[in-house]
Amino acid sequence: MRTRFARRRRQTVQELEKRGLDCLLVSSAANSYYLTGFTGESGLVLVAARGTILLTDARFTVQAHEEAPGIRVELAKKELYAAAGELLSRRGFLRVGYDQGQTTVAQLRALRKAGGAKCREIAAGGVVEGFRTRKDAQELTLMRRAALLAGEVFTAVVPLLKPGVREDEIAAEISYQMRKRGASGESFPSIVASGARSALPHARPTRKRLRKNELVVLDLGAILGHYCSDLTRTVHIGTASRRVRRWYRAVAEAQQAAIEAVKAGVRCGDVDGAAREVLQKNGLDRYFVHSTGHGLGLEVHELPRVARGQEIRLEAGNVITIEPGVYVEGVGGIRIEDDVVVHFNRSEALTCVERDLIEL
Amino acid sequence: MRTRFARRRRQTVQELEKRGLDCLLVSSAANSYYLTGFTGESGLVLVAARGTILLTDARFTVQAHEEAPGIRVELAKKELYAAAGELLSRRGFLRVGYDQGQTTVAQLRALRKAGGAKCREIAAGGVVEGFRTRKDAQELTLMRRAALLAGEVFTAVVPLLKPGVREDEIAAEISYQMRKRGASGESFPSIVASGARSALPHARPTRKRLRKNELVVLDLGAILGHYCSDLTRTVHIGTASRRVRRWYRAVAEAQQAAIEAVKAGVRCGDVDGAAREVLQKNGLDRYFVHSTGHGLGLEVHELPRVARGQEIRLEAGNVITIEPGVYVEGVGGIRIEDDVVVHFNRSEALTCVERDLIEL
Repeated sequence: MRTRFARRRRQTVQELEKRGLDCLLVSSAANSYYLTGFTGESGLVLVAARGTILLTDARFTVQAHEEAPGIRVELAKKELYAAAGELLSRRGFLRVGYDQGQTTVAQLRALRKAGGAKCREIAAGGVVEGFRTRKDAQELTLMRRAALLAGEVFTAVVPLLKPGVREDEIAAEISYQMRKRGASGESFPSIVASGARSALPHARPTRKRLRKNELVVLDLGAILGHYCSDLTRTVHIGTASRRVRRWYRAVAEAQQAAIEAVKAGVRCGDVDGAAREVLQKNGLDRYFVHSTGHGLGLEVHELPRVARGQEIRLEAGNVITIEPGVYVEGVGGIRIEDDVVVHFNRSEALTCVERDLIEL
Repeated sequence: MRTRFARRRRQTVQELEKRGLDCLLVSSAANSYYLTGFTGESGLVLVAARGTILLTDARFTVQAHEEAPGIRVELAKKELYAAAGELLSRRGFLRVGYDQGQTTVAQLRALRKAGGAKCREIAAGGVVEGFRTRKDAQELTLMRRAALLAGEVFTAVVPLLKPGVREDEIAAEISYQMRKRGASGESFPSIVASGARSALPHARPTRKRLRKNELVVLDLGAILGHYCSDLTRTVHIGTASRRVRRWYRAVAEAQQAAIEAVKAGVRCGDVDGAAREVLQKNGLDRYFVHSTGHGLGLEVHELPRVARGQEIRLEAGNVITIEPGVYVEGVGGIRIEDDVVVHFNRSEALTCVERDLIEL
């Protein structure tokens, strides 16, 4: 465990040297965990060749020592960015990388003020996020477990999907089943969207009751061992109409085409295109209003983006979702989502749940 | 409902006029909801005298029309801040307020680039947060319900607190009980911290099992009707030692002193001081490592901060937590937390749960 975190910090230091930076100020919780093991809600990690410092407040110092043994923990006695600025100045760091995508304008101002005139803050976001896209074997093991857990929870709630049951009751059951099976939490608030509501890609569960002859989209994910899973299935209450079956088949084929397109070296935009093309052939592409997928790991939305026009190429060790859908306003929606690992010449599914249309 | 949102937008426009701003770009989810009713995960609200525009992407446009009727919804066809910049430029807004505490450095850059040279972005954070600190009667009704729900859930899980039960099982039950009772979610991941772990103010639930003669801190909150509650009780498994009883009594007295100090016009720092003074008299102040409380509302941490040295004065309609605690490393911790409304000449508790030490 320890060596894993230390290795990532060494990798970061090498990147700093390439960029001519004295240190990197890491502000996102996921990046801080990735580099140190610390999970407290408030903290900044300063990575430098001379060693890493974890700056946190009094609520989290005991936890910091516990979770990040061997890392120097400093207690911030004022607002975190002001304290970080003073630390930079005290240590004589001159060229400081910070994450422009995580740091607010106010935080940068506080950092600059306390850091003094000699210290230069340089936008260096994405360094750790880049490392995080390539999962190692241990990370993949954790992610496989998180994905399997999501599948077990889906399977456990299917018998509850009956006319008269409320969307929010099912969402409560999903959350409970996850926790019971060891998840530390949900990757995101589960979606249980039935009937016309299923046409809202990001609907929140409501008190609406399921009815006969409705589509129900279930989108859920578990956090297990710090890693996220993300799984969507769409079921139909009662026997589906020919139109719904046709839509479902098109989405399933679109997903299959995208999954088959996945391997190292392929452009992310081309994976998106593979799904979109199938929907287009079925005259449904205008109902596919989001991207085909996204990276997955310590966060539920990571790099790479699997979206139209993305030139970036997949690398072995990437974990991405493949989740095409069609959404017909006022009628309903269908989405099918799985998590896959990118390998040298193929993809591998982490989620493992029947993909055929379930009619209940 | 609608008039409530419209009134808040008018209030915002008045403030813009005072500050000589043409419009305000609202980026936080809580502020966007407060002004429009929109709850989508991705969106920017542009408030101006000529009308409000809600900018969102294709995943949320249907939801935007549903939740914010009467507000102009625009579909962002590129990254949200770049789209916002173009909108500003197209509409000829010259002096644009933005929230420097919510906007990242990268977002501001995208906004500036797309907004063009004529458009000036001016830090104007905190405007809506300021309005939000003063809850109206309708908000207080919702908050009272959320607080009562938290209390019911605490009462429901107390019988489960027995030697051998795991912390994370109790956390799962808390989450389930909330959802079953109609909460849309938890205000924050519940804390269930037993034994020496109770000395970590922000411990996450683990697989550790409760044991005889341990303190257990339970800190939980429900979101109901968009508003958060936040409640902490500490129980003892078995008969408490004299030392633990002494600590508990001191924390309860500190909380009572702070609650009694609460009324409109009092400095937040003085409320914090009232709790701290009682702990000092008991020789325990060095074990009180955090602030006495925080504002509560659409977010679980809002203004005002009830912390040492805070000069800001309480106003009628503020809702704050009062949550002193003592944390003795390696031994255990005690925290008691309630939510109170600030009135003209007194405070009123929203949470309603027995405060005496529960020995199980």
